[in-house]
Amino acid sequence: MAAIARIEDALLAAVAGAIGPGCPPRLAAALRHAVFPGGARIRPQLCLAVARACGDDQPALADAAGVAVELLHCASLVHDDLPCFDDAPLRRGQASVHSAFGERLAVLAGDALIVLASDTLARAASDFPQRALQLMRTIHAGVGMPAGIVAGQAWECEPRVALRQYQRLKTGSLFAAATVAGAQAAGGACEDWRALGECLGEAYQVADDIRDVIADPEHLGKPIGQDVALGRPSVATEQGLDAAMALFHRLVAAAVAAVPACRGAPMLRALVRAESERLVPPALWTEQRLRAVA
Amino acid sequence: MAAIARIEDALLAAVAGAIGPGCPPRLAAALRHAVFPGGARIRPQLCLAVARACGDDQPALADAAGVAVELLHCASLVHDDLPCFDDAPLRRGQASVHSAFGERLAVLAGDALIVLASDTLARAASDFPQRALQLMRTIHAGVGMPAGIVAGQAWECEPRVALRQYQRLKTGSLFAAATVAGAQAAGGACEDWRALGECLGEAYQVADDIRDVIADPEHLGKPIGQDVALGRPSVATEQGLDAAMALFHRLVAAAVAAVPACRGAPMLRALVRAESERLVPPALWTEQRLRAVA
Repeated sequence: MAAIARIEDALLAAVAGAIGPGCPPRLAAALRHAVFPGGARIRPQLCLAVARACGDDQPALADAAGVAVELLHCASLVHDDLPCFDDAPLRRGQASVHSAFGERLAVLAGDALIVLASDTLARAASDFPQRALQLMRTIHAGVGMPAGIVAGQAWECEPRVALRQYQRLKTGSLFAAATVAGAQAAGGACEDWRALGECLGEAYQVADDIRDVIADPEHLGKPIGQDVALGRPSVATEQGLDAAMALFHRLVAAAVAAVPACRGAPMLRALVRAESERLVPPALWTEQRLRAVA
Repeated sequence: MAAIARIEDALLAAVAGAIGPGCPPRLAAALRHAVFPGGARIRPQLCLAVARACGDDQPALADAAGVAVELLHCASLVHDDLPCFDDAPLRRGQASVHSAFGERLAVLAGDALIVLASDTLARAASDFPQRALQLMRTIHAGVGMPAGIVAGQAWECEPRVALRQYQRLKTGSLFAAATVAGAQAAGGACEDWRALGECLGEAYQVADDIRDVIADPEHLGKPIGQDVALGRPSVATEQGLDAAMALFHRLVAAAVAAVPACRGAPMLRALVRAESERLVPPALWTEQRLRAVA
């Protein structure tokens, strides 16, 4: 099965288990809305690609790892869109969860997604419990405290922030969890895979900063100019677009170079390159350069 | 070691791991504030009492189960106190987390507590992984969807609510998780312990409704009259105080009767009775009756 179909099937199964009999209907609808339709599903794709590169001998465990990472990503989007953070009306081109269902259900749906992520791992763990427990710890570390995406987001509430540390935690920590957990699911040498996740995650955050300045809001599926409006740390606004693009290209090159030698290496390098062109389309950057010199 | 000291030590160790090097200082402070000083710690006490009654042959696992349940309870308080729910300025006699640290850090601290709860279980699991995985599933079910405390809270967002179902999920589901997980940690016959948790949890919610009408706010550590003010379902306001007290006494008697035959049964029955007098102090109820006939 193609990776993307495998991920959607596994996400559907996890969500179906959560919205079972007796569930409050509006909470069930909010949960579905938070997960479907998805974005690029890049984190679980990366997780499964690494599991495949490591032999993928426990596909159900790799699926669970990919699902957990994606559900945690969705939870972070739902909570980051809340009025007290970004107050975002749109996400992925549709109403954000709090816009569609209200703030209370957005808080609760995010909470339920975090629980569901861990429970998906516990459910898939029984055949290879030691592997599963290791990858649970990896994924929890990527999302929680002291150095997961929750901690990254919390740096926005501190009087002083180191920009690179903020970038690394806010996005890179969950990307690194995706690659390391993918390797752990397949019994691979997991620490060899951390740098790939970290570099790609940081590239992703830098690309997010760049798109927030130069993208077309309709294509992006959410408003632009939010980093300045909300006073968020941003490479693009603090160091300028050219410096941000140079950093982005360095990070993508570092991610490509970080792919360990293995049978799946060419496929993974191609995935990283394709993703980098999706993140900052070359045509978009060319347009921006033309505007700058006009 | 006395159960309460054992619980505080285990909570301190779990929180210390989360606020380690690199953690944003204000998030670390918000997490500590959410967990310490605690309330009665009734859920972990119950969990450990059941584990002891079942032999407590894996005390570290029982501790982890108690800690996870308490951290999830703390997370639910932090999120329930948010402006979009109860907008509560006080909790346990001190400022609520959002009052002290702002709404954003309250959302993030609650999220981090949920992650920390599951991670505490994963960390303690390696010696008895199958037991640990079972009790993880129990605790996740008690907190998540479709029938944990998150679902209970979400019934407040539905146009129609069945009062008993709301009461059972909003509080009973995490109490039931505490008793069942306590038995699972010690390899006991876990389903025998579910009714005790369910009855005591429902009694606890009914007591909460009663105290919201008749308690002294200073003694309660939070404002009273909130069920009416916020339009929350409440046995005390919907059926009257006398009917609520009668239901409370029936539920406590059912909890006492639900304690399975075992060496620790007398201690557990005594714990339930003592807790019931703490929940609705007989003197408070006598005062209320005197006021009613005056």
